[in-house]
Amino acid sequence: MRFELTKDFLDQLRLAIVEENNTWIIEHIHELHFADIADLLDQLNNEEAKYVYFQLSEDVQADVLMELEEDIRDRFLKSLSSKEMADQLENLDSDDAADILGELPEEKIQEVISQMEDDEAAEDIVELLNYDEDTAGGLMQKEFIKAKMSWPVNRCLVELRRQAENVENVYTIYVVDDANRLVGLLSLKRLLFADIKTHISDLYQKKNIISVKTNDSSDDVAKIMYKYDLVSIPVVDLQNKLVGRITIDDIVDIIKEQADKDFQMATGISDKIESNSSVWRVSRARLPWLLIGMLGGIFAANVISGFTDQISHIPTLALFIPLITAMGGNVGVQSSAIVVQALAKGTDQFDRIFKRLTKEALVGLLNGTFLAAIIYGIATFFGNAILGMVVSISLFVVIIFAGIFGTLIPLILNKYKIDPALATGPFVTTLNDVLGLFIYFTVGILLYS
Amino acid sequence: MRFELTKDFLDQLRLAIVEENNTWIIEHIHELHFADIADLLDQLNNEEAKYVYFQLSEDVQADVLMELEEDIRDRFLKSLSSKEMADQLENLDSDDAADILGELPEEKIQEVISQMEDDEAAEDIVELLNYDEDTAGGLMQKEFIKAKMSWPVNRCLVELRRQAENVENVYTIYVVDDANRLVGLLSLKRLLFADIKTHISDLYQKKNIISVKTNDSSDDVAKIMYKYDLVSIPVVDLQNKLVGRITIDDIVDIIKEQADKDFQMATGISDKIESNSSVWRVSRARLPWLLIGMLGGIFAANVISGFTDQISHIPTLALFIPLITAMGGNVGVQSSAIVVQALAKGTDQFDRIFKRLTKEALVGLLNGTFLAAIIYGIATFFGNAILGMVVSISLFVVIIFAGIFGTLIPLILNKYKIDPALATGPFVTTLNDVLGLFIYFTVGILLYS
Repeated sequence: MRFELTKDFLDQLRLAIVEENNTWIIEHIHELHFADIADLLDQLNNEEAKYVYFQLSEDVQADVLMELEEDIRDRFLKSLSSKEMADQLENLDSDDAADILGELPEEKIQEVISQMEDDEAAEDIVELLNYDEDTAGGLMQKEFIKAKMSWPVNRCLVELRRQAENVENVYTIYVVDDANRLVGLLSLKRLLFADIKTHISDLYQKKNIISVKTNDSSDDVAKIMYKYDLVSIPVVDLQNKLVGRITIDDIVDIIKEQADKDFQMATGISDKIESNSSVWRVSRARLPWLLIGMLGGIFAANVISGFTDQISHIPTLALFIPLITAMGGNVGVQSSAIVVQALAKGTDQFDRIFKRLTKEALVGLLNGTFLAAIIYGIATFFGNAILGMVVSISLFVVIIFAGIFGTLIPLILNKYKIDPALATGPFVTTLNDVLGLFIYFTVGILLYS
Repeated sequence: MRFELTKDFLDQLRLAIVEENNTWIIEHIHELHFADIADLLDQLNNEEAKYVYFQLSEDVQADVLMELEEDIRDRFLKSLSSKEMADQLENLDSDDAADILGELPEEKIQEVISQMEDDEAAEDIVELLNYDEDTAGGLMQKEFIKAKMSWPVNRCLVELRRQAENVENVYTIYVVDDANRLVGLLSLKRLLFADIKTHISDLYQKKNIISVKTNDSSDDVAKIMYKYDLVSIPVVDLQNKLVGRITIDDIVDIIKEQADKDFQMATGISDKIESNSSVWRVSRARLPWLLIGMLGGIFAANVISGFTDQISHIPTLALFIPLITAMGGNVGVQSSAIVVQALAKGTDQFDRIFKRLTKEALVGLLNGTFLAAIIYGIATFFGNAILGMVVSISLFVVIIFAGIFGTLIPLILNKYKIDPALATGPFVTTLNDVLGLFIYFTVGILLYS
């Protein structure tokens, strides 16, 4: 039932493009789902993709355009004239059109907008361009369906039919008063089964109307829609006037992006990269993290250089350097990760810090005791009982300290409005490396002297 | 407009519970959104929560129950008798009821089901319990709306009104033939504006019907719904008969869970833990990763112990041990992370491995050259030009090797159906620690001799 993109099909399509065999293209492409057509175009070069794209009907064009991979879409749009681009934007939902336009330079934006024929669509887009892209205003679309409280059902049906033409997915009808203030919701289901003479004011849901304001952050919007299980949410301005709606697909994108970002941060990649990004871009995205890591290594070298005398006398001290640094890093990142996740969920507060630190210290005590006991025997085997004591005592101390630092740092970053996920990267690891080595050699000197 | 949970309100509520002041409770709680009521109950002890819960109307009870935190819900349900639990399950959507029931021991399940009064609901739940929870069958609910192709619109409206009573969110009507085989979709919008004498067969969408089979994995369902921008998807059996639907809220949960899992894997936590999990549980979730890290440290000690003679002669060699291990680990995890993300998106294949490795080697060459050049100067400053050469050459080699290992390991894990995200944990780091040290000391011996 679902389309599988094969190399064979691609070859045939390429041939049809060369031969300008539009009958073949229309016959084989028109049947496909727009998401599959987009996948197909992602595989073609720009000229080929353009050729196929302009064989599609306008409605399908809009859907396909939004499903293209970002790089491919940018390349495609860049190759269009302002007039062509204006035509394409008119077919898109207003939020998508504004997102695309927002990426362009100021003059180009004006040029494209002046070429748009549908004044209402152009106005909507211009309005949306005013909002910061990370706010509810930047996410919302102007396509939604509203009904006035005072309408009877039959009038409502007539009005809705007109409005519904532009709205792809109707989940809920927003009910407003005469001043366009949001007063409630009406489900299509309810409307469908209502007597045509009933007034909307007797049908609509007044209680528990969840809406967001245009300047609410997109993270907050995502949290609210997730918490209240909403597939769409109305957006109001400061006077509670209905100005747009946000649909779940945008929120799923935000959740995915946030998760990708946290994951990349935790694994030391500083920029949004895909597996098909260029060598140069991948290299640049990784370098900052590696430089921090290297800086940590240099600090560590500096710490150890204070102990070269001890090392030349007792070279077995060097054996456990990697163990101490690795364990400090691992414990620190583990602790940070739990805090970062809690902060992302909004379940954790800076003022619960003491409780959290106590707990972290307890976990450290438990794991530290267990691991220190194991390493005592092993280090004794590699060196002697003194080395066993040095390694196990310092490991124990390192585990507790690393846990506390790992907990504190993301909380502090968050307090100062810096992304706490930074702490799961090389930052905490590096700090713990240096600290761990210092503890290790200090314990070493104390016990060996 | 949105409810803010304050300590004050909680205190008042607790007082009302003690005083059995139901008027206060009903007045102040009934107005709230179910998600807010759930937040409230999450803060109470089980006896208090139970008291408030049973003041709610049945409809609200079901919604609140599903919004409770998992631990709290489990505790709450355990404190109910089989009869009470059966009553609660009858109010839930079938998928939620089956999920809750599926957690119980076999005898308890039978006991609860035998206490259910609504036979149809009980049958639905029993059917759903047959499916593996990680499949479309395990995710789907039996609450959906279907229409027969042969119905005229007015008949359809009558039938739908009956069906719609049990279905909370109606997004799409599924159209079936006389044998209950899925043939297409009908949007409520379309139905709303159709002439009542039209037949469904003239209205419904036949092309591009995306459905999943009961045994499709939940990951695949999530990918498909995301790809095709669906808020609900019909589920069919092997004969293409319509058996259920999956809604977007379940998919958002899957996406979140998957992201949390990857993040926890990358940060070295082996079990699903929340910030409010017990010390004991947190400790256990972290130990496996720390043990692997420690094992790596012991291997590293073993490698270094082969070079103690060199270290006692040239103790500055020990200075850069942390740098070499840290850089190997960082590069390895970076490379793995990109592969893991590509695999999760389904954009990467094992057979494109050669292309990927070449690219990884190029990135390594670029970053390796840059970082090696910097460290040459610094290591020369700490020791001498030979140490500079040793550190920079081995760093260069380590970066390239770590990149290649970091790429290969998740691909291999994935090939053998093991979660590739494992590679972003201490696994790759540990391997690279040991390998890096070996390279470092070997280069050291070669250049110093």
